Amino acid sequence: MSHNSFGHLFRFTSWGESHGPAVGVVVDGCPPGLVLTPEMVQRDLDRRKPGQSRFTTQRREADEVRILSGVFEDERTDGPRTTGTSIAMMVENTDQRSKDYSEIRDKYRPGHADYTYHQKYGLRDYRGGGRSSARETVARVAAGAVARAVLGDVVVRASLVQVGPHKIDYNNFDWDEVGNNPFFCADKEAAARWADYLDGIRKSGDSVGAIVEVVAENVPVGWGAPIYGKLSADLASAMMSINAVKAVEIGAGFEAAALTGTENADQMRAGPDRPYFLSNAAGGILGGISNGDPVVVRFAVKPTSSILTPRQTVTTENVDTDIVTKGRHDPCVGIRAVPIGEAMMACVLADHKLMHRGQTGREGPVGY
Amino acid sequence: MSHNSFGHLFRFTSWGESHGPAVGVVVDGCPPGLVLTPEMVQRDLDRRKPGQSRFTTQRREADEVRILSGVFEDERTDGPRTTGTSIAMMVENTDQRSKDYSEIRDKYRPGHADYTYHQKYGLRDYRGGGRSSARETVARVAAGAVARAVLGDVVVRASLVQVGPHKIDYNNFDWDEVGNNPFFCADKEAAARWADYLDGIRKSGDSVGAIVEVVAENVPVGWGAPIYGKLSADLASAMMSINAVKAVEIGAGFEAAALTGTENADQMRAGPDRPYFLSNAAGGILGGISNGDPVVVRFAVKPTSSILTPRQTVTTENVDTDIVTKGRHDPCVGIRAVPIGEAMMACVLADHKLMHRGQTGREGPVGY
Amino acid sequence: MSHNSFGHLFRFTSWGESHGPAVGVVVDGCPPGLVLTPEMVQRDLDRRKPGQSRFTTQRREADEVRILSGVFEDERTDGPRTTGTSIAMMVENTDQRSKDYSEIRDKYRPGHADYTYHQKYGLRDYRGGGRSSARETVARVAAGAVARAVLGDVVVRASLVQVGPHKIDYNNFDWDEVGNNPFFCADKEAAARWADYLDGIRKSGDSVGAIVEVVAENVPVGWGAPIYGKLSADLASAMMSINAVKAVEIGAGFEAAALTGTENADQMRAGPDRPYFLSNAAGGILGGISNGDPVVVRFAVKPTSSILTPRQTVTTENVDTDIVTKGRHDPCVGIRAVPIGEAMMACVLADHKLMHRGQTGREGPVGY
Amino acid sequence: MSHNSFGHLFRFTSWGESHGPAVGVVVDGCPPGLVLTPEMVQRDLDRRKPGQSRFTTQRREADEVRILSGVFEDERTDGPRTTGTSIAMMVENTDQRSKDYSEIRDKYRPGHADYTYHQKYGLRDYRGGGRSSARETVARVAAGAVARAVLGDVVVRASLVQVGPHKIDYNNFDWDEVGNNPFFCADKEAAARWADYLDGIRKSGDSVGAIVEVVAENVPVGWGAPIYGKLSADLASAMMSINAVKAVEIGAGFEAAALTGTENADQMRAGPDRPYFLSNAAGGILGGISNGDPVVVRFAVKPTSSILTPRQTVTTENVDTDIVTKGRHDPCVGIRAVPIGEAMMACVLADHKLMHRGQTGREGPVGY
Repeated sequence: MSHNSFGHLFRFTSWGESHGPAVGVVVDGCPPGLVLTPEMVQRDLDRRKPGQSRFTTQRREADEVRILSGVFEDERTDGPRTTGTSIAMMVENTDQRSKDYSEIRDKYRPGHADYTYHQKYGLRDYRGGGRSSARETVARVAAGAVARAVLGDVVVRASLVQVGPHKIDYNNFDWDEVGNNPFFCADKEAAARWADYLDGIRKSGDSVGAIVEVVAENVPVGWGAPIYGKLSADLASAMMSINAVKAVEIGAGFEAAALTGTENADQMRAGPDRPYFLSNAAGGILGGISNGDPVVVRFAVKPTSSILTPRQTVTTENVDTDIVTKGRHDPCVGIRAVPIGEAMMACVLADHKLMHRGQTGREGPVGY
Repeated sequence: MSHNSFGHLFRFTSWGESHGPAVGVVVDGCPPGLVLTPEMVQRDLDRRKPGQSRFTTQRREADEVRILSGVFEDERTDGPRTTGTSIAMMVENTDQRSKDYSEIRDKYRPGHADYTYHQKYGLRDYRGGGRSSARETVARVAAGAVARAVLGDVVVRASLVQVGPHKIDYNNFDWDEVGNNPFFCADKEAAARWADYLDGIRKSGDSVGAIVEVVAENVPVGWGAPIYGKLSADLASAMMSINAVKAVEIGAGFEAAALTGTENADQMRAGPDRPYFLSNAAGGILGGISNGDPVVVRFAVKPTSSILTPRQTVTTENVDTDIVTKGRHDPCVGIRAVPIGEAMMACVLADHKLMHRGQTGREGPVGY
Repeated sequence: MSHNSFGHLFRFTSWGESHGPAVGVVVDGCPPGLVLTPEMVQRDLDRRKPGQSRFTTQRREADEVRILSGVFEDERTDGPRTTGTSIAMMVENTDQRSKDYSEIRDKYRPGHADYTYHQKYGLRDYRGGGRSSARETVARVAAGAVARAVLGDVVVRASLVQVGPHKIDYNNFDWDEVGNNPFFCADKEAAARWADYLDGIRKSGDSVGAIVEVVAENVPVGWGAPIYGKLSADLASAMMSINAVKAVEIGAGFEAAALTGTENADQMRAGPDRPYFLSNAAGGILGGISNGDPVVVRFAVKPTSSILTPRQTVTTENVDTDIVTKGRHDPCVGIRAVPIGEAMMACVLADHKLMHRGQTGREGPVGY
Repeated sequence: MSHNSFGHLFRFTSWGESHGPAVGVVVDGCPPGLVLTPEMVQRDLDRRKPGQSRFTTQRREADEVRILSGVFEDERTDGPRTTGTSIAMMVENTDQRSKDYSEIRDKYRPGHADYTYHQKYGLRDYRGGGRSSARETVARVAAGAVARAVLGDVVVRASLVQVGPHKIDYNNFDWDEVGNNPFFCADKEAAARWADYLDGIRKSGDSVGAIVEVVAENVPVGWGAPIYGKLSADLASAMMSINAVKAVEIGAGFEAAALTGTENADQMRAGPDRPYFLSNAAGGILGGISNGDPVVVRFAVKPTSSILTPRQTVTTENVDTDIVTKGRHDPCVGIRAVPIGEAMMACVLADHKLMHRGQTGREGPVGY
């Protein structure tokens, strides 16, 4: 019941605050013998890193990861390999500007966790949001890199599919475009429009929400564990645990409410080795178990509440006041949620791979 | 890592199949000294019970609960009271029609868990859906009744807010109407329209999806546990674990994606004892911790796939065929999800109440 | 964190009180496809059953198990087989004599859990010890029978090796004798002497302690999970959780304290397929991981405190008094602990088998 | 199911290898608002530190702890205080001598975890024992220091009570002596004799086992959770998880097997506020729940297998060979187990304090 941990057999524990000396993660339960280099982790951390475009926070962090345990290399191991023991990774916080924190120490920022942390615990590390900062997601992304090593040929990718009210056109969807724009967007035309839109938002001192879609391909049939360890339930928990996320859906999601059974149920046909589905309203999950189709999850990220517009709030002494949140903030925090969503999807799948293997002795389905 | 269990300190474990002898639940971690009568559990089970209107399955079950352990009564206890030990409850399955199951034994019903259970485990109890049947939700509702006893004056209620494409009008919202129509709907005008609509759906042999909204009031500030035990993450997991649920949102939910920070962040004002919020886009949760406002969760239930329209599918031998699902089914399974959603909300809150108390020694906030 | 549950991947949850309507267990995480009949469970329950000799309690219970879920049989399954879902089993309590409980209601029996349960929870089900009764071990033995099905050719056996101050002679050790005497004792000569000794104890209205040794053979190298999920740590927890157990040791155990490193370390020699050990001071476990040798655990059971000799105690109102515990009790509760120790060993090993398989993808060692 | 984690509500996760860059721990679930300074942790780490006398390993480590998260200090907090979030602590490994590891790379040391780690995982970090090294106990001791802060006026102390065959005389027992000799021994006369004895053992290149006794005072009635979360079961798991421990007992322990019920059951008398016990054979635990008496646990540590005497073993290629373990080792590893045993006792008690508070809302008994 460690609330800073996520997962069952593949389980990580995260620690660190925005303006403490470092943030880190311990990954437990990773299979032995997998190649794991700092570069494999760094690659994902670099995608999450702040300050890469004018659309994300200007905080400057090298975000260099150190792997402190759980990996061993000698002349026989052909590269650094996981040993099956706990893998600790740490990233130092370097850009913690020395500044006057009295404003956020004494006032609650509306829409932030300031008030609830303070009330729950009676004190809080208010510097940069402390533990509630998105800086914590460094831990997730590092753990996700390990999860990818566990997953082998399962491919986990994500794209921003909506910024403010502006959605992508799925007809333009091209995974190869995701790396070509500052939004991790698979629709290059949408990305171009968003750049203008977000410049306006940024200049007005405001922010907007966004929707991220995460897709996992090559997931075999059979991962997921009814009833309360459903793949869908664990994915919902995973995505909802990300900072600022307020909604999660699988496959047709909320749209399914408006559909009829005739429209919604994915019909099946016999394939050469196993059946296939004629559609994927299920988002790759039936009864909480993967059905072999791509696993499709979308989640909504609310607009950051750190904006330049003055807002009504109260002091920690319960007195009315106003606040303007200055500093380095993201006009659309949803952008940087893209690699984080990928990481959480990878962790959930790695966990269910190991659990399925534990219970059934198989990597994939028992049935065929 | 018991996948048929839900919760941390307040934790229940569910068992039973649709056509087995019984279904049941064991609730562990319940505080001692609470009054718990079979009637308190029965009241909630009766709301979930099938066959109460023409809009739900015609399966006839008495659904009489027996409390088998964890409760004690003598002349000193002033009624049956929980003892702090595990509470076992059981409901016998009485209406398991003897019938020919060869159709669903040999074919996978599209949109059902038949295929994935069979593949994951290599065999399945196909009778009435076996373990994947909504019959399992008896366990949740019974556990939810115990959770209500734990929660005291926290009020957990739910309403159906959308059936197919038809939404309620929130201007008509009246909790007192929920018990007056077969849809658990707080908008009596919507309920009247839905009756006609669903009659059409039912007669056409089809089904539709729905959206349920669950609201908890009187939740103190401070429940919820960052980072991976967020109240929102546990609620997402709880709701997504319900049969046929494909989407979950908190407060503004997916709508938040289209909002600006100015619109979305709930401003605060000083109240007599503590601050209050001018709006509730947050759905009562900030940073994963309750903020004192009503906790608001919505989830989407897909249309049941058990419909009279012939659908393309395959046999368990991977051969193309068609299927028509006969038998007693719900045209809108979302209706009966209303008391189930309440139960899951109650269980999550009871769990977080106990965890908050464990970590902080308080029932509510430490801060004031 | 369900305290009435045991295990990780193979996990059971127990419920029921001595004088409630029934006791039961839910086993979660069992692999699918295993043959599991009521007879397989009944066989172990019958060995634990009270009233089988004059040396155990005269409570008369049929202890007939019902399997309520998780097992399915049709023409294709070649007997009832586990489905991979939760397995519920229940045994009704039939011999709950209606009697006057006021003596144990109003006084704490020394050496019993009466005082601590009452204080911890503020109330208790005092009838026959309620939840603290050894009747709960029905759940363990039933779960253990499922665990044996998981373990396949791993053989788990136990023997009583000491009663009061009287130890067996290991030179006489013969597993085949265990079924031939009322003590589950592998030394028939010791068993004969114990019969006389225990008759004396019984007639004097007193009781004695005992030591049980449990041995598992054919355990492959590699089960167990450092650091806090060591096979030895889980076995220690398992055995210490049994009623009245106050001590646990592995292999040389406490004797190891008096040995030198030269004496204690088991030397190794090359075998045809893998190395073997020249001795087994380690009790089959090194660094928390099985080494291929028999896993050997011993545990001490204290004498039951329910004796006919008057003892000093207090009332629930904290007033001095005396108590004599009448009723049906065991002069040596250690006897019936033998099948319970086997069951707990089987559950721990089944759990670690699944976890090892989950993390490594192997049934046995990765190394060779 | 993180096997490198220990505890439920108060839970720590450990990482690091003997010759990696550092070892560390993340403590999760610690209550907020407690004063926690590096000095409080360092004090306990210094007691565990190697190289403090000629009777422990000559490895030289500063063992300076850094607290990396979970603690916050400003002008209002009156010292550094826990924030309720995860507390990460790290100790760098400084004395990792560069040397030739080929001997232990290619051969299994008898009595060590070399063979089982290698077989379980297919590879191992053999340098200094890697993850199986007692260096890991730095993590436990650091976590234990936090647990002491949680426990307030509960006093946890330990003494070495046996070295090889030589026991202390309990008539000489004086807690104040523990700090006056290199053995953490409460009997100064025994300590004097042990010095001579161990000099002989050390010079002969051999080692011996030991027994440690840990005692917790001021534990209120009511901590512990039946059935599988018994205080005794968690303590057994905690102590058995320590390197080289092969046996654990509570109170009378194995001696209880030889006692009669008349001798063993602790009689009770009415005290001014609550009852008290006339003896403590129970070791402070009845039915898995603390009874208000001192909690007394003893555990046996086997002699280290790293000795200068040549021993028979095999190579990693399964070929017969001999081995002599050179290097810096403890003639009696039991000595340094004393502060480790204290730490584990403190962690178990802190955990049960929080769980009891969570379930019952009380710090101590509900009953009076």
